[in-house]
Amino acid sequence: MRDDLPKGFRASSAPAAFRKEGRNDLGLIVSDAPCVFSALFTQNRFCAAPVTVCREILASGKTVRAVIANSGQANACTGHEGLENARACQRMIAEAFDILKDEVLPLSTGVIGAQIPMDKYAGALPELKSNLGTRDAEGFTRAFMTTDAFPKFSSKDLPLSVGRVRLTVMAKGAGMICPNMATMLCVALTDAGVDRERWQGMFGRAVEKTFNRVSVDGDTSTNDTILGLANGASGVVLADPADLVLFENALTEILGTVSHMLVMDGEGASKVMHIRVFGACDEKNAERVARSVGHSQLVKTAVYGGDGNWGRIITAVGYSGAEFEPERVTLRLCGIDRFINGQPVNDDMEDELAKRLRARDIDVEIGLGDGEGTYTLLASDLGHEYVSLNADYRS
Amino acid sequence: MRDDLPKGFRASSAPAAFRKEGRNDLGLIVSDAPCVFSALFTQNRFCAAPVTVCREILASGKTVRAVIANSGQANACTGHEGLENARACQRMIAEAFDILKDEVLPLSTGVIGAQIPMDKYAGALPELKSNLGTRDAEGFTRAFMTTDAFPKFSSKDLPLSVGRVRLTVMAKGAGMICPNMATMLCVALTDAGVDRERWQGMFGRAVEKTFNRVSVDGDTSTNDTILGLANGASGVVLADPADLVLFENALTEILGTVSHMLVMDGEGASKVMHIRVFGACDEKNAERVARSVGHSQLVKTAVYGGDGNWGRIITAVGYSGAEFEPERVTLRLCGIDRFINGQPVNDDMEDELAKRLRARDIDVEIGLGDGEGTYTLLASDLGHEYVSLNADYRS
Repeated sequence: MRDDLPKGFRASSAPAAFRKEGRNDLGLIVSDAPCVFSALFTQNRFCAAPVTVCREILASGKTVRAVIANSGQANACTGHEGLENARACQRMIAEAFDILKDEVLPLSTGVIGAQIPMDKYAGALPELKSNLGTRDAEGFTRAFMTTDAFPKFSSKDLPLSVGRVRLTVMAKGAGMICPNMATMLCVALTDAGVDRERWQGMFGRAVEKTFNRVSVDGDTSTNDTILGLANGASGVVLADPADLVLFENALTEILGTVSHMLVMDGEGASKVMHIRVFGACDEKNAERVARSVGHSQLVKTAVYGGDGNWGRIITAVGYSGAEFEPERVTLRLCGIDRFINGQPVNDDMEDELAKRLRARDIDVEIGLGDGEGTYTLLASDLGHEYVSLNADYRS
Repeated sequence: MRDDLPKGFRASSAPAAFRKEGRNDLGLIVSDAPCVFSALFTQNRFCAAPVTVCREILASGKTVRAVIANSGQANACTGHEGLENARACQRMIAEAFDILKDEVLPLSTGVIGAQIPMDKYAGALPELKSNLGTRDAEGFTRAFMTTDAFPKFSSKDLPLSVGRVRLTVMAKGAGMICPNMATMLCVALTDAGVDRERWQGMFGRAVEKTFNRVSVDGDTSTNDTILGLANGASGVVLADPADLVLFENALTEILGTVSHMLVMDGEGASKVMHIRVFGACDEKNAERVARSVGHSQLVKTAVYGGDGNWGRIITAVGYSGAEFEPERVTLRLCGIDRFINGQPVNDDMEDELAKRLRARDIDVEIGLGDGEGTYTLLASDLGHEYVSLNADYRS
């Protein structure tokens, strides 16, 4: 299904053969007007060169015009040469499209430690230029896919008090997915007009509630970036308090939709665990428990195998480092109580549980009986496909 | 190969059909004389019932006479009934072998949350009693195996200034292996005579250098226990300072040998990573880096696939939370420099690296260039066998 970008944004993609022939591995988005810009980045100490460049632009407080994304090489752990290459990419795009170098946001994903072949980059520019004009979100999204099984994007029109605005979110990511950003690249576009401070506030809150709460393998990558560009081309300016609330809710919803796609794709994932922790003394402790369970290889493989081995979940709660009293802990798996106040539930629900574990979405509810802290994490299972994909990603 | 226990220890095993028919799943060790006792336990908040019981005995400071181990049920997350069952096991063994209840150390491993079928336990006692007498280490070791591919035990004779002593270490564990104990059960026996304080000191140091530095999947189980029993039956008392050093070295060596077996077995593991971190500002930071790398699913799958994707190692260093300066970090993989002072090494060693990655033992050397802190961790890879074993462990 064709999914148009918001007004005033155009896209392009072209084949550069960065790693493999025959696919469009270079994608571009250009805005007709300058965009208010917000972004969140990986917390990995070895951040990739394009992350460094985007951070500089964000810190400058200036508006931006374009996003250029390549797959094949992550341009991470590439040293001085990698940073020079990222800046050269900005320059080439700026010259080709007649904008300023620092209006160009670079994104890279692929093999870590490999340099982007700059001759191939330059060679793809003419086609990238001639292809510009489409408003199709899928083309750009496909350009930065790596091990993704399907392109992840979603759009939404939103009627506000003073007119309609549109939101489009495009993301890639399947492996190295972990809360607080992972090899996850995401571009959120809107034609709403909004001031920088408001945009940054709502964008940060929406990401915290969505992308920062998904987990595939606990590996936080060097490249994770989520960019938010608002170009105002709809003529609708977000100022009315009710409109601001509606818009932030819609933004959170659409980021939630796309982040769920990431977990579902989770490099061979077949199931999504919805891990809901409640009754923690605070949110931080609820989060610790949720992440410990969501990252446990033994829990993930049990869910993959449809095995109601709930003891592995309790085990992960136990080594989470969170504060709680074991004798107040309860666990409900797929809606069936398995552990109440530190005691196992002995009943004949095993067959029913096995049946429910065949579903795609698996509810894991953990109560700590301690306070008001809650946290929900989406996490993928761990199966043979994950191993196969990652054992020879480079080959 | 037959491997005799140290003097004064006798073993037995019998089939109780706790989970499957036709195997000896109940193992016993009895010492003719009271044993000085030391132990280390899981740090999981949900510790299993036998762990609670062993902890009480350790805290009492009293000597012990027997170790009784079952596989099939871990007796963890089993509530009040589980604790009652553990004490009932102690009582049955005490009565059958004419020793005191609190001289009996219980160990359990298997499915979490399931109760031990006590009628089967009682039913196996006569055969357990009639089988007592063997001094073969393998029989006991096989009794507490679960997903282990092979039994893990090792013995060593040690000539000291005043006579010979013998050491035997028997362990089980393949999954849920993580530093600071995992579903790892281990019994170390010696016929040396040693006072309680010295025994506890050297035992704790030796475990810290060996079992606490292996990792399979990062899951710290509810049951991990390592017991050390010294019965003095050799007539040799450890008192001479030089003897004490020799003995502690031998104990560390043999615990190291057996812990290496655990990683090698690591539920379908095909390779062992030797992750050596040096140049950290302190040991704690070196440890953080080593564990982050050793637990990374992406590093483990790459090693499994023989893929020299060193960027994943650097990525795991980057999100470890350790203190370091990225531009001082170096990485040597299988003896080949891949990253020096934050810069990638561009050379034609890829084919040579691929060749070396086919080895069973993989050296990962990470320098932080910051100080004197070092840490070495043994970690397994992650392959299809791990997923297969854990997706249906209970079935």
